[in-house]
Amino acid sequence: MIRIGILGYGNLGRGVEYAVNQASDMELVAVFTRRAPESLQIVTSGVPVVSVNEIASWKDKIDVMILCGGSATDLPIQTPEMAKLFHVIDSFDTHAKIPEHFAAVDAAAKASSKVAMISVGWDPGLFSLNRLYASAILPEGKDYTFWGKGVSQGHSDAVRRIPGVKNAKQYTIPVEEALEKVRSGSNPELSTREKHRRECFVVLESGADAAAVEKAIVTMPNYFADYDTTVHFIDEAEFAKNHSGMAHGGKVIRAGKTGENGKNTHVVEYSIKLDSNPEFTASVLVAYARAAMRFAEEGTVGCKTVLDVPPAYLSQKSGEVLRKELL
Amino acid sequence: MIRIGILGYGNLGRGVEYAVNQASDMELVAVFTRRAPESLQIVTSGVPVVSVNEIASWKDKIDVMILCGGSATDLPIQTPEMAKLFHVIDSFDTHAKIPEHFAAVDAAAKASSKVAMISVGWDPGLFSLNRLYASAILPEGKDYTFWGKGVSQGHSDAVRRIPGVKNAKQYTIPVEEALEKVRSGSNPELSTREKHRRECFVVLESGADAAAVEKAIVTMPNYFADYDTTVHFIDEAEFAKNHSGMAHGGKVIRAGKTGENGKNTHVVEYSIKLDSNPEFTASVLVAYARAAMRFAEEGTVGCKTVLDVPPAYLSQKSGEVLRKELL
Repeated sequence: MIRIGILGYGNLGRGVEYAVNQASDMELVAVFTRRAPESLQIVTSGVPVVSVNEIASWKDKIDVMILCGGSATDLPIQTPEMAKLFHVIDSFDTHAKIPEHFAAVDAAAKASSKVAMISVGWDPGLFSLNRLYASAILPEGKDYTFWGKGVSQGHSDAVRRIPGVKNAKQYTIPVEEALEKVRSGSNPELSTREKHRRECFVVLESGADAAAVEKAIVTMPNYFADYDTTVHFIDEAEFAKNHSGMAHGGKVIRAGKTGENGKNTHVVEYSIKLDSNPEFTASVLVAYARAAMRFAEEGTVGCKTVLDVPPAYLSQKSGEVLRKELL
Repeated sequence: MIRIGILGYGNLGRGVEYAVNQASDMELVAVFTRRAPESLQIVTSGVPVVSVNEIASWKDKIDVMILCGGSATDLPIQTPEMAKLFHVIDSFDTHAKIPEHFAAVDAAAKASSKVAMISVGWDPGLFSLNRLYASAILPEGKDYTFWGKGVSQGHSDAVRRIPGVKNAKQYTIPVEEALEKVRSGSNPELSTREKHRRECFVVLESGADAAAVEKAIVTMPNYFADYDTTVHFIDEAEFAKNHSGMAHGGKVIRAGKTGENGKNTHVVEYSIKLDSNPEFTASVLVAYARAAMRFAEEGTVGCKTVLDVPPAYLSQKSGEVLRKELL
């Protein structure tokens, strides 16, 4: 049994707990939190909730620590720190800072002879894999990533900061015409506005000026000005009923040419549709925890990403069974 | 430069030649054939066409031999034989015989300290990868593979063997209602008839009985009796104009449940649409030839499948560049 710890128990941490409970080769040993441990209600009975201050004393009781903190401030510190004690997995998703994070985690993991995997999830993660496979196979082509339909936390926050807004959710939605163009294999040039549109559901403070709020949203630089944005004003009851979900999704599509003068076109599309973004991300993290143990067992140490992992390492099954059942 | 040889020059072999020409880190050294070498017209000028009888003398001039023979009789003999001389890649696709082929090739490759990759292509190959990734991430789920729209060579041959048939093409087509059910995440039980339908385009010999031919097709056991089959009788001109292509495609879809009592459903879909089945398969073979060299350089020997290959090995780019550009 692979002994799993969870550090951080928000939506992602709880998702990891559910995913570990689906894995017959793993057991959840403890959940670590910065909050008062007794204030946390976890799902699995009999598993201790422990203060993060005591985590070092669990060094020999846990194989893989799954880090469920945020990319902005938690993971840049936690991942290298925890890699001194455990094999670790994180879902670091600040694309521009991945090289820097990789270097810090790699140094820490090598010093302690541990395996660390960073940026595991769906983007970065499964989408990165699909960009890699498709571009290696069809070098004369172009890939496109579409996100949604799903909630963008950053854009929802930006709307909530506008005076007069009580609550808000922002959905990123791929533009259907853009998808069709890309699927046709024509490798179009698409502007930001042509690829995605944005839809906001806003609850106003009483007495707020709806027209002013709408204008503040659709003209907001970086966040909305470059997109076609629709704003819906709704009441709190409708907000609670229809906009509390965490659904998300997206697509990676690549079209490439082969043959005589590139006369033949091939289109490869990878698409996901998720009822719960954190639970799916958690399921990816847990599969890669298994891969971390496989690396550790073969004596590999240091930092890895999904691009480095032989797919078979994600499965409980032997190479022989996989070849028979899946190949 | 990775020095590539091609053994067998049909549609697949020519596709490999085009794909090697797209790869800036590879050069085509020679094409080997069982036919009279001077009878072969290849695409790349300056590359020799050589009799297969002389292949052993190219042992030190070629790194990876890409085997473009058929799975029925060529590859079971050629792949272990060639693995004595070169790193090899094949597209062996007789699913039931993969374990046996793997064992024979593995023994040969280990004895000569070579790398061999078998069953590379899209199914087996990329579809196998997608079944593996999706099932490891969503263990409580079910996957579905759909093929087409595309030509089935075996079914076309079966129709051509019917008395009175001059020429025939058979298309395998996924049933749209089945796709929609699977995409809904309901994990339906689907019969053979519910998943795919078959469409035949037939040119009759003069004087043949169309009704008898149609009946012989739609009632043919194993091939057609379990499917809804449509038969179109056309003339030779239309056959040549509209049914000489090699387009194909397919989808792997998995839906799985996570969270409290499995209340959340996630659907992952991988889909390909190919203008030329052999050219796309060839492009996959060539990307895996690069991976074979990476294994060889790190001292790994023996037989591998796509399930064993770290995705980064398919790319010319360094890990650092891949993390920056694709992750």
